[in-house]
Amino acid sequence: MNASDESLMSSSDAAQRERGTDGARSFEGRLLERMLTRLGSPEVEFTLWTGERVALAGVEPVCRVRVSSRATLLSILANPAVRFPDAYCDGRIEIEGDLVRLLERVYLADERAPVPSALARLLGRLRRPHGNSLAGSRANIHHHYDIGNAFYELWLGQTMAYTCAYYPTAETALDQAQIAKMDHVCRKMRLRSGEHVVEAGCGWGTLALHMARHYGVKVRAFNISKEQVAYARERAEREGLAGQVEYIRDDYRNISGRYDAFVSVGMLEHVGVDNYEGLGAVVARSLGDNGRGLIHSIGRNYPAPMQPWIEKRIFPGACPPSLAQMSRIFEPHNLSILDVENLRLHYAQTLRHWLELFELAGDRVQHMFDAKFVRMWRMYLAGSLAAFTTGTLQLFQVVFATGHNNEVPRTRAHLYVP
Amino acid sequence: MNASDESLMSSSDAAQRERGTDGARSFEGRLLERMLTRLGSPEVEFTLWTGERVALAGVEPVCRVRVSSRATLLSILANPAVRFPDAYCDGRIEIEGDLVRLLERVYLADERAPVPSALARLLGRLRRPHGNSLAGSRANIHHHYDIGNAFYELWLGQTMAYTCAYYPTAETALDQAQIAKMDHVCRKMRLRSGEHVVEAGCGWGTLALHMARHYGVKVRAFNISKEQVAYARERAEREGLAGQVEYIRDDYRNISGRYDAFVSVGMLEHVGVDNYEGLGAVVARSLGDNGRGLIHSIGRNYPAPMQPWIEKRIFPGACPPSLAQMSRIFEPHNLSILDVENLRLHYAQTLRHWLELFELAGDRVQHMFDAKFVRMWRMYLAGSLAAFTTGTLQLFQVVFATGHNNEVPRTRAHLYVP
Repeated sequence: MNASDESLMSSSDAAQRERGTDGARSFEGRLLERMLTRLGSPEVEFTLWTGERVALAGVEPVCRVRVSSRATLLSILANPAVRFPDAYCDGRIEIEGDLVRLLERVYLADERAPVPSALARLLGRLRRPHGNSLAGSRANIHHHYDIGNAFYELWLGQTMAYTCAYYPTAETALDQAQIAKMDHVCRKMRLRSGEHVVEAGCGWGTLALHMARHYGVKVRAFNISKEQVAYARERAEREGLAGQVEYIRDDYRNISGRYDAFVSVGMLEHVGVDNYEGLGAVVARSLGDNGRGLIHSIGRNYPAPMQPWIEKRIFPGACPPSLAQMSRIFEPHNLSILDVENLRLHYAQTLRHWLELFELAGDRVQHMFDAKFVRMWRMYLAGSLAAFTTGTLQLFQVVFATGHNNEVPRTRAHLYVP
Repeated sequence: MNASDESLMSSSDAAQRERGTDGARSFEGRLLERMLTRLGSPEVEFTLWTGERVALAGVEPVCRVRVSSRATLLSILANPAVRFPDAYCDGRIEIEGDLVRLLERVYLADERAPVPSALARLLGRLRRPHGNSLAGSRANIHHHYDIGNAFYELWLGQTMAYTCAYYPTAETALDQAQIAKMDHVCRKMRLRSGEHVVEAGCGWGTLALHMARHYGVKVRAFNISKEQVAYARERAEREGLAGQVEYIRDDYRNISGRYDAFVSVGMLEHVGVDNYEGLGAVVARSLGDNGRGLIHSIGRNYPAPMQPWIEKRIFPGACPPSLAQMSRIFEPHNLSILDVENLRLHYAQTLRHWLELFELAGDRVQHMFDAKFVRMWRMYLAGSLAAFTTGTLQLFQVVFATGHNNEVPRTRAHLYVP
């Protein structure tokens, strides 16, 4: 189909709409229209395997989707939130245009969609995501984090920090923003030389090394990802910090000992809301009477399950909490919330940077894995970016202290002294 | 009783305790010991009307309480949280020593006290504080805020701001700290000249005038206290700001119109948790798609009712929320929490300053009212100070924006630029 066909088709569509009929629309096309309406009318145009084009009246498409077969369309109609990205990954649909913009429209449209039926809500509640028992967490974390450090090195930047960065200015580069994030976290906790810090969920060990090197603290850092812990230990040895930083391959639930500060950056998403009170008990027993800490996590404005495709394919067991849900960590243990900062737009910028590096490394990723893997990770990174730009996801940094701790900073000005 | 009697009595007490008996302890004394144990062993010594002295073993008193009669003691034993301060106000007990320190010990001891029985918890739930219907709120607010502007002028300082101040340094004076608080609030909302702001609960109108004068905004400020609104209107006229600031004597539930920003400093304590979702609806309809705002309120680390004497005598209908409870304002309306700052120790300092001014004005207050009134307000201010120093109460400043508003500041550095 060439450009003139396209414009012809569009005017004919417009004419049909003016007539208020759907004339030559196929049965599948009508089902697709119904789905688009139910999804809140995202600005997308579909081209079916027959060449038929389907878009809602009055909608200006930002993206075009080509569907290869009736079976693919029917599968998407049955469960668009999961089967649409699956079909993209398998190459059964092609997407032309700006994937991030399309997904932004879908997220925004989703909020305008009619309230789900009672049956849909019930099914949603019954759908149990992957559990976070000790063994469940090991499996869930292995699924995402143990697929090869070399892959993550391609697009996370020098720091290998796989969490929201902090951009003091719009021009800050990724690596500098990751370092700024670590300093922001350390300053929020007012780390002092000689103190003992426990870290729950330490990724490739970057923050622990940063705290040890620049703030003179001793760190015990917990993580259940085999590959990450091996990588972190090797880094600590290589950088001469193995005496200050101990990486422990174990679950946060098994943290023992007493510390001055508790820090967790990007683990809470994997904990599961049902385990928050237990996590709070770990925090409280780690800190004793006079400690403080910081938890950094993806969150939401209100409770809602993880996007189901992300939960199924990318982050089994993951759930970003609302701030009220996060409070279940603190309230039962008289932990006092001192400071909450929402870094949502910083995560959007971080994802923009990751996605750029990922696309640059596309051929190498395809060589390491396959084309499907590239599409799956593109969908995940683009969808996450869209979720942060639209406000579907938030990023909360929560600073807290034990309830009677009066040794807390008077103001936050010290965070912003150059 | 002189000092040597005292030390004699103490050693004789110690001797008795070593014998593991309560020898000459009267029946009332034994009941009082039981109450003190139940309250978590606060460091206080009682002197009864008979001269008998009662304190728990191993406790170093910071305060001495003289009880005038058996009837007074029995009434305190029946309901210490309400009848102890009541007896102090009526002059039926005298307190020697540091009242704030005593109340701090009571607050801290309270947390160490055994978990209340099921019956006590049930009675607690059944005890309905004064309701916050439209009429209930009017009565509740009238009770506290309409007792005479001249009284409040004696101890609130020049600004007549009756909320937590903000102390950039430990040496900041009260009036400067109140001005710094208003600037902190305005900067957090990034007010721009020409914008429209709605204020819910405006006290004597100080913040509204400050926003209009220094940030060039138009303000509609709501309050149901007759005396406060009259005072605020007169101030606006006198200061030539009546064209920019409109004071409306009406309930926050009746706020109409569309605004760029919503602000409420020190009203939420009077709203009642059951009304938070409704308050959020008022916020959401006031802001439309692209607004932001700030709510400043006394809070708690975990949900708990107001101290019952304060609720009964000082602030009927009041309840300081936990942060999770506050979230009920935001979550149902997709309002996004951007920033939470806990200013607990700033409120302690504010109360220290108020209490100093109040004591300096003691004679004038007694002349305006009576000795009982002076004691009641001393108990309230000292108790509030103790609640903030011990972490029983918090002060949350919450900045929020509508869910899709991306015009939010990247960082908080702008708050700390001199």
